[in-house]
Amino acid sequence: MPKPPVQEPNFARMVPSGDNMERDVCVTCGFIDYVNPKIVVGSVVRWEEKILLCKRAIEPRKGYWTLPAGYLELHETAEHGAAREAQEEALADIEIERLLAVYSIPRISQIQLMFRARLKRPEIGAGPESEAVALYDWDDIPWPELAFPSVNWALRHYEETKDRTDFPPFSNPADGL
Amino acid sequence: MPKPPVQEPNFARMVPSGDNMERDVCVTCGFIDYVNPKIVVGSVVRWEEKILLCKRAIEPRKGYWTLPAGYLELHETAEHGAAREAQEEALADIEIERLLAVYSIPRISQIQLMFRARLKRPEIGAGPESEAVALYDWDDIPWPELAFPSVNWALRHYEETKDRTDFPPFSNPADGL
Repeated sequence: MPKPPVQEPNFARMVPSGDNMERDVCVTCGFIDYVNPKIVVGSVVRWEEKILLCKRAIEPRKGYWTLPAGYLELHETAEHGAAREAQEEALADIEIERLLAVYSIPRISQIQLMFRARLKRPEIGAGPESEAVALYDWDDIPWPELAFPSVNWALRHYEETKDRTDFPPFSNPADGL
Repeated sequence: MPKPPVQEPNFARMVPSGDNMERDVCVTCGFIDYVNPKIVVGSVVRWEEKILLCKRAIEPRKGYWTLPAGYLELHETAEHGAAREAQEEALADIEIERLLAVYSIPRISQIQLMFRARLKRPEIGAGPESEAVALYDWDDIPWPELAFPSVNWALRHYEETKDRTDFPPFSNPADGL
């Protein structure tokens, strides 16, 4: 296995030939860094009436509570990615039930696909990216300590539809763009 | 505006320090190319009972018919991206109605968000990536000349729900993974 080189790329903003937008181009090697929006997959996971939350062990928002979620990897389906994130962050074995919401976060170029899911068994534990994990009753959710606005949105959209099996997924709330 | 350099990056597969997966690393400049799945946004667009299709002027599948769709750009919402693609490929001014389907295409690391939409006015035309555009009656759709399986899926999912306003979005059909 070759060892990574120690030098750093030297990017400048320019329009590559045949393109019509500025990109980061490395002036050392000519690499054009085409950056695309990223896909986050996650889930609101229930066990009986409780909801799984993870306390973040990493930045951003270290120490705040979040839903199990993360970047979709290459060659994954969205559902598989959401189940993998629950396994990695909360050692949770989940069954994806249905799509809850598709949020667009254009400021940071993210599309978030949030599913409703259930724990197959109640054993959970903190993965490397979590300081702690817990099953919260709705009334005990630490609202002021949630990591991101979309965690709040997904929890509220979950609560609104938790007894329904047939509903269109939500997009951003009206005040959430 | 600086001019792009003429040299080419020289990638080798290696595991960057602090990572646990092989990536393409440029041995000239040290750049690590983190590749992520891509998001395609598109729509099934109707005008009265007809459906908008575009004949592709570019590879892959040049000469075959597709729905207006393409890669989401940075800092776009999914809905805005789908409307932009309809404008670019079919000079079509559309109103997004609702999410029709979320397809995962893990072989090529794509997530496709397909919307149902309507033309605001019937004027359409071929954009630079289209040889032709047309409004097809359902019975005249050129099924053997559709560009991609997911075009077929989206049309069938559209037909199944075109008279409904409240339905969960589809994912891949059972035979489509």
